[in-house]
Amino acid sequence: MGRMSVKASTKFLDPRHRPIAVFDSGLGGLTVVRQILALMPGEDVVYLGDSARVPYGTKSPSTIREFALQDARFLMGFSPKAMVVACNTASAVALPVLRQRVERGDGTRGRCKVIGVVVPAAQEAVRRAAGRTIGVIGTEATIASGAYQNSIARQDGSSKVLSAAAPLLVPIVEEGRGEQDPIVLHVLSDYLREMQRARPAVLILGCTHYPLLSRAIGKLMGPDTQLLDPGVATAVQLRDYLRQAGLLSPRRHGRLRCFSTDNAMRFARLAQRFLGRPVGRVKWVGTDELAAQGENS
Amino acid sequence: MGRMSVKASTKFLDPRHRPIAVFDSGLGGLTVVRQILALMPGEDVVYLGDSARVPYGTKSPSTIREFALQDARFLMGFSPKAMVVACNTASAVALPVLRQRVERGDGTRGRCKVIGVVVPAAQEAVRRAAGRTIGVIGTEATIASGAYQNSIARQDGSSKVLSAAAPLLVPIVEEGRGEQDPIVLHVLSDYLREMQRARPAVLILGCTHYPLLSRAIGKLMGPDTQLLDPGVATAVQLRDYLRQAGLLSPRRHGRLRCFSTDNAMRFARLAQRFLGRPVGRVKWVGTDELAAQGENS
Repeated sequence: MGRMSVKASTKFLDPRHRPIAVFDSGLGGLTVVRQILALMPGEDVVYLGDSARVPYGTKSPSTIREFALQDARFLMGFSPKAMVVACNTASAVALPVLRQRVERGDGTRGRCKVIGVVVPAAQEAVRRAAGRTIGVIGTEATIASGAYQNSIARQDGSSKVLSAAAPLLVPIVEEGRGEQDPIVLHVLSDYLREMQRARPAVLILGCTHYPLLSRAIGKLMGPDTQLLDPGVATAVQLRDYLRQAGLLSPRRHGRLRCFSTDNAMRFARLAQRFLGRPVGRVKWVGTDELAAQGENS
Repeated sequence: MGRMSVKASTKFLDPRHRPIAVFDSGLGGLTVVRQILALMPGEDVVYLGDSARVPYGTKSPSTIREFALQDARFLMGFSPKAMVVACNTASAVALPVLRQRVERGDGTRGRCKVIGVVVPAAQEAVRRAAGRTIGVIGTEATIASGAYQNSIARQDGSSKVLSAAAPLLVPIVEEGRGEQDPIVLHVLSDYLREMQRARPAVLILGCTHYPLLSRAIGKLMGPDTQLLDPGVATAVQLRDYLRQAGLLSPRRHGRLRCFSTDNAMRFARLAQRFLGRPVGRVKWVGTDELAAQGENS
């Protein structure tokens, strides 16, 4: 307890200094952190990437919910002022249970606002489409959940939505293949064939990995389709919430702390591609620790 | 204890009636079970597929070792007479620690022989290649470990080995794409380009998913390259061990019991493709249970 200095206590007393917690199944969520820091560079962010159990998008809803709850419980240890579920799959499948637990403080040591990426993206898509068709691509679990489709329908019951699961895009990006790679283009054409025909006004890139392929996707879809990165809409919604709640950081420069459940050095090496700048030192946390924490709380 | 009948006690006393334990990161290991049951239909098999944390092949060695140890500890609860590490990645990265723990009974409740797929496949490849070049394809972790390369060198120091990581093949097979799919052929041609030039005498299919693409791989490689499924060589080595140890089952028909860490119904639905026949009822076991077991033992 000797390390709990006066400064730390002050930080604890002023909730504006509390960090924003962000989690994802792996590295992809750093594209959301990138948007958060672009909008609010003064915020502290604590990021957890569950790289040891990535991907979430091919797993069943009960497994995704269990993992997401473990991730959230770990991050609650940092007393965040808000939690962002950067993972589209976890947002689509686990948001109700996450909000129930984290916003009500049910077994999570403290409580805070939870923001997923699906609702902000759906709202922004409806606004931009203005009655025209909206397209969504995402993981198997995200598309099967119907979360985007339902969320869009709740904003505008008359919206026409076309969705497509694109499971191979995550491993393709993780393999480091670029947008010029013929296999990337081949796989994209295969997944987007129907989308190209339907020509939606807006296409939601419903997985944190897809913004890294946005140039190739844009070329295939043509100039009539706007691409929507949920990270941008989510960062805006987060800022609006923090502002309304009087929780925006008064500082100029925040600090990013990253945790990974797999090799921390590998995470640090690959992170730059998603974050757009070096990520600094990454700490390791074991999935057995995450799982055990779940039982204790 | 009333259910522990005389029959059960006899089973316990006669080690020939003990099951063979098999684990894999997911469904792929059922291609190994298929070979085991083809050779020894009288054996009981207990299979664990860690589908909640699949794949292992893109993860770091320390994470793979941790997961493999948890899988092994779970299976030791069934008092197996032998354990087969069907996962090439776990065999390549975790076999020394698995043998140390499971064969010595170090924190694993009982002990038994451990057989991985790498050594049997390497031995068979050296025998078949008879001095000519051997090719190996596998996951990122399998190829990076050098396990196949080292194992072949130990058999025959003069063997020329050509290896290639083929990370996308696992998600491609899991997505259900068949051998006729243009994307499958495109990805295969990309990975096998150098192999096709080198024309190895034998190509080791160093991942349990690859036998499902063997026809397409065979076409690309041509008639001068023999494809080697490690599951076949492993089943033979397992039978030889059980025979020598006097542990072969005297029965005609064995029983297969499957456990999955992800949705058991999904596992059962997809399993048939790998096993070649329906798998029956699958039981779920949580990864938190696997992780907790590790701590207790």
